[in-house]
Amino acid sequence: MNRSNGAPVDRSIRAESAASVIPAASGSDFLQLDIGDAPFGGRADWLAGQLRRAISDGRLPLGSRLPATRILAAELRVSRGVVTEAYQRLSEDGHVAGRGRNGTVVVAAPAPPAEPPRHPARRENPVGSIDAKAPAPHQLVAPKGVFTHPPGEDIFDLVRSAPARIDLSPGVPDLTAFPRAAWLRAEREVFGSLSAAGFGYGDPRGTPELRRAVAHWLARNRGIRAEPDEVVVVAGTAQALALIGQVLREDGVEEIAVEDPGSLGVRQHLRRQGLRTPPVSVDAEGIRVDELRAHRAVLLTPAHQFPTGVVLGGARRRALLRWAGDGGLIVEDDYDAEHRYDRPPVPALRSMLPERVCYAGSVSKLLAPALRTGWVLAPPRHRDALVSAKRFADLGNAALPQLVLARLMESGELERHLRLLRRRHRRRRDAMITAIRDHLPGAVVHGAAAGLHLLITFDGDRAEAFADTDLAAASLARGVKAHPLSWHHQRPGPPGLLLGYAASPATAITEGVAAIGEALRDLR
Amino acid sequence: MNRSNGAPVDRSIRAESAASVIPAASGSDFLQLDIGDAPFGGRADWLAGQLRRAISDGRLPLGSRLPATRILAAELRVSRGVVTEAYQRLSEDGHVAGRGRNGTVVVAAPAPPAEPPRHPARRENPVGSIDAKAPAPHQLVAPKGVFTHPPGEDIFDLVRSAPARIDLSPGVPDLTAFPRAAWLRAEREVFGSLSAAGFGYGDPRGTPELRRAVAHWLARNRGIRAEPDEVVVVAGTAQALALIGQVLREDGVEEIAVEDPGSLGVRQHLRRQGLRTPPVSVDAEGIRVDELRAHRAVLLTPAHQFPTGVVLGGARRRALLRWAGDGGLIVEDDYDAEHRYDRPPVPALRSMLPERVCYAGSVSKLLAPALRTGWVLAPPRHRDALVSAKRFADLGNAALPQLVLARLMESGELERHLRLLRRRHRRRRDAMITAIRDHLPGAVVHGAAAGLHLLITFDGDRAEAFADTDLAAASLARGVKAHPLSWHHQRPGPPGLLLGYAASPATAITEGVAAIGEALRDLR
Repeated sequence: MNRSNGAPVDRSIRAESAASVIPAASGSDFLQLDIGDAPFGGRADWLAGQLRRAISDGRLPLGSRLPATRILAAELRVSRGVVTEAYQRLSEDGHVAGRGRNGTVVVAAPAPPAEPPRHPARRENPVGSIDAKAPAPHQLVAPKGVFTHPPGEDIFDLVRSAPARIDLSPGVPDLTAFPRAAWLRAEREVFGSLSAAGFGYGDPRGTPELRRAVAHWLARNRGIRAEPDEVVVVAGTAQALALIGQVLREDGVEEIAVEDPGSLGVRQHLRRQGLRTPPVSVDAEGIRVDELRAHRAVLLTPAHQFPTGVVLGGARRRALLRWAGDGGLIVEDDYDAEHRYDRPPVPALRSMLPERVCYAGSVSKLLAPALRTGWVLAPPRHRDALVSAKRFADLGNAALPQLVLARLMESGELERHLRLLRRRHRRRRDAMITAIRDHLPGAVVHGAAAGLHLLITFDGDRAEAFADTDLAAASLARGVKAHPLSWHHQRPGPPGLLLGYAASPATAITEGVAAIGEALRDLR
Repeated sequence: MNRSNGAPVDRSIRAESAASVIPAASGSDFLQLDIGDAPFGGRADWLAGQLRRAISDGRLPLGSRLPATRILAAELRVSRGVVTEAYQRLSEDGHVAGRGRNGTVVVAAPAPPAEPPRHPARRENPVGSIDAKAPAPHQLVAPKGVFTHPPGEDIFDLVRSAPARIDLSPGVPDLTAFPRAAWLRAEREVFGSLSAAGFGYGDPRGTPELRRAVAHWLARNRGIRAEPDEVVVVAGTAQALALIGQVLREDGVEEIAVEDPGSLGVRQHLRRQGLRTPPVSVDAEGIRVDELRAHRAVLLTPAHQFPTGVVLGGARRRALLRWAGDGGLIVEDDYDAEHRYDRPPVPALRSMLPERVCYAGSVSKLLAPALRTGWVLAPPRHRDALVSAKRFADLGNAALPQLVLARLMESGELERHLRLLRRRHRRRRDAMITAIRDHLPGAVVHGAAAGLHLLITFDGDRAEAFADTDLAAASLARGVKAHPLSWHHQRPGPPGLLLGYAASPATAITEGVAAIGEALRDLR
């Protein structure tokens, strides 16, 4: 069927813009690299460093294509393995992405610097009102208070219920892909085999079927060896945090250090349990483990740091495990680790030190947040307390969706779904990177190698004198939702936006980013 | 198909015993009643009182049939309306049950007396071990600790996972009747109409569809007028108690008075939130409101007191509402109010004083506990705090089951299901009453007019020198699960058993009660 006729004109223009060809970097005299500068035996390292610098300083802009390994190897007169290895390192960092026959593309600049910028964005809990600035005319359609007040505990409900044409809120996968037919089919099978007792009260830890399926899933996808009996099924990461917080409070823990920037929602959930959440810096290698010395417990997102997208580096990882081995407790929030595009999977910390790592995962980013299903693996000493907390929270998750999910996991259906999502998400991410290059030329992109969102900042030489909450408000006034980075900062940081790409089609992404570009130009 | 051949001999004997004809009380010289003793204008009251006494002292045993109204009216030379009204009162009390063409049958004796019995049953938290008594040989198959230790917080998990042939645990409806086909059909419709956003994060109060359906349901079935916006969907009564407890604690409440006897599970959930649960006596009219003076908040089960089955009397109800009007807070646990067999519905307290009543209901007894779905209507001053507590508990219930349930409620499917359950449950209850008469002649039955369980006690002139936990253990050793009454007592009370009849077929009920009878004989 020919769908090209009858498409609205503005759409087709935007689609064309999204699909515009990204000029490939030339392999001839590429970056004026001279392999003579490299120490022998460290040439792949040297090449990766050169490329990283070029990406960082803009000589290799986002979306640009690296030369084919064969060509660059010939050019530099090194073996092809040296180039392949260098590309592999950049890919693991999340800076470039392998594209099969389309080559290797730059997808993200290095993480934002740890030092505070010259123009502090809004603080999370400022003293007094920050609403003195009169709204610009184009802000009139934005619901009052969403971005003009410091975020309260209902902030995500406010954002969710704000009307918008295009929703680039982070943290949601492509929901149109939800496997409705497979779910119904599995549910029919469950009804066909479920005994009457299965409709009664059950084990507060969850059904044996789902605990087994989760154990298998974690072994296949996250490198974790766990017995089904160690798995506690919970109502999503939100409940995981509530229960873990409760258990740690009862154990005498009064604070859990968190990444800064780090999820505002996570902080809110922990604080609700009476825990303090002291900030620990994040840099290009992930959380600064040296800052953990004063702390007893930390919550972090090692596989894909929220919101920067940094992967916890190998040295940091080893330092963190040493810290935990000396008595520290790690809460590993593995919120979207299955979504990786251009890099190998990073095994969960839990796989290395189960005694000191409390692991939380969910299907919110795999299937749908509306399923409210997740899991926790507690360290042995907290296991009974966790089960008790779950029992008195709600006696256990509902049984039917657990049994359906277990079937989807054990039959391979969920992995098929994940592969489909990866393909779609990758296309959408690429469309977003293109749109950012076209419409937000001052923005730096972070964390594109995995996850469901990008972070853009306006730091470095291009730092701007504006608050990202104003940019988010101005964008919403243009019908586009995005989250300001400052919400996730406890201490001052560069202004930025979190842009979810997974849940929107490429045309909407391009249109949304263009609207944000307009909003930014008006703000200046 | 002829099923009479091939049935095991012991089964057919028991079935025959269950179906044995109950001798009808004769209308001629029935109870030697003399209407001349009655004050004119109060003759229905007088007759109801005479009959109640006869039931209480055993002259009208359980299962016996009252004379037809026409016959007794002729006998007493009063208008038929006097007799009908007297029967109606007994029916509202839950002492007799109208059986259509089968007449009116005695289904329960008045509630146990409030004063302590001569042989106190085990206390909930005794000092020291009570496990000194060596188990009898027939107790060897019973899992250790279920009934031989004071009940800990995992007691209901222990009971659930104990192996047994017949499960007479209270609180579960007929789960074989779960409307699997209707559920699947409704779910297919939901999938057919749900937008992608419906799979995302949602309103922590629940989906608008289910909140609307619950508001309609409560108006039709419980006399409550509520706006959908007042309804908060929760994960069953367990979560309702956790959230209400949290909200009240934050509001400075330190104790919630509870009925004694009253649900052990409810007490455990409230205590988990740091609340004390001082006991308030229950008598034949329900909770003793005069004992509430020293208290600020109370949790009760007015429609069908757990575990006695008493309905809160009219005078008590008015006194309770006066107490609440003077500043008391009522938590109304409406756990199984839809299940009534022989009496008109009692409107919820919430319908009369919404400002002072926090109402909790669920589908655990309507459809299945495994759905983990319930609702709370908070008084206006606690509403925001309740929503906040739900948000930080789990961000709201899963969406799909809410939408399916909303369809079943709005289409009339759930009411059809309830009518089917009522018919089945009533037959099972009658089988249980018959079996109790045959196999536990010393037992007094309470609370048969509604709900999913009976309470039997061994009090009054027939009080026995045994602990009901021993009886429950001995029954479990014979493959039959039942809950000891003493679990639900905070202060000493008569020994008793809670026997759920709704989830088991009549043959299993008869067999189970017979086994309990054997266990009782062996204990003596």
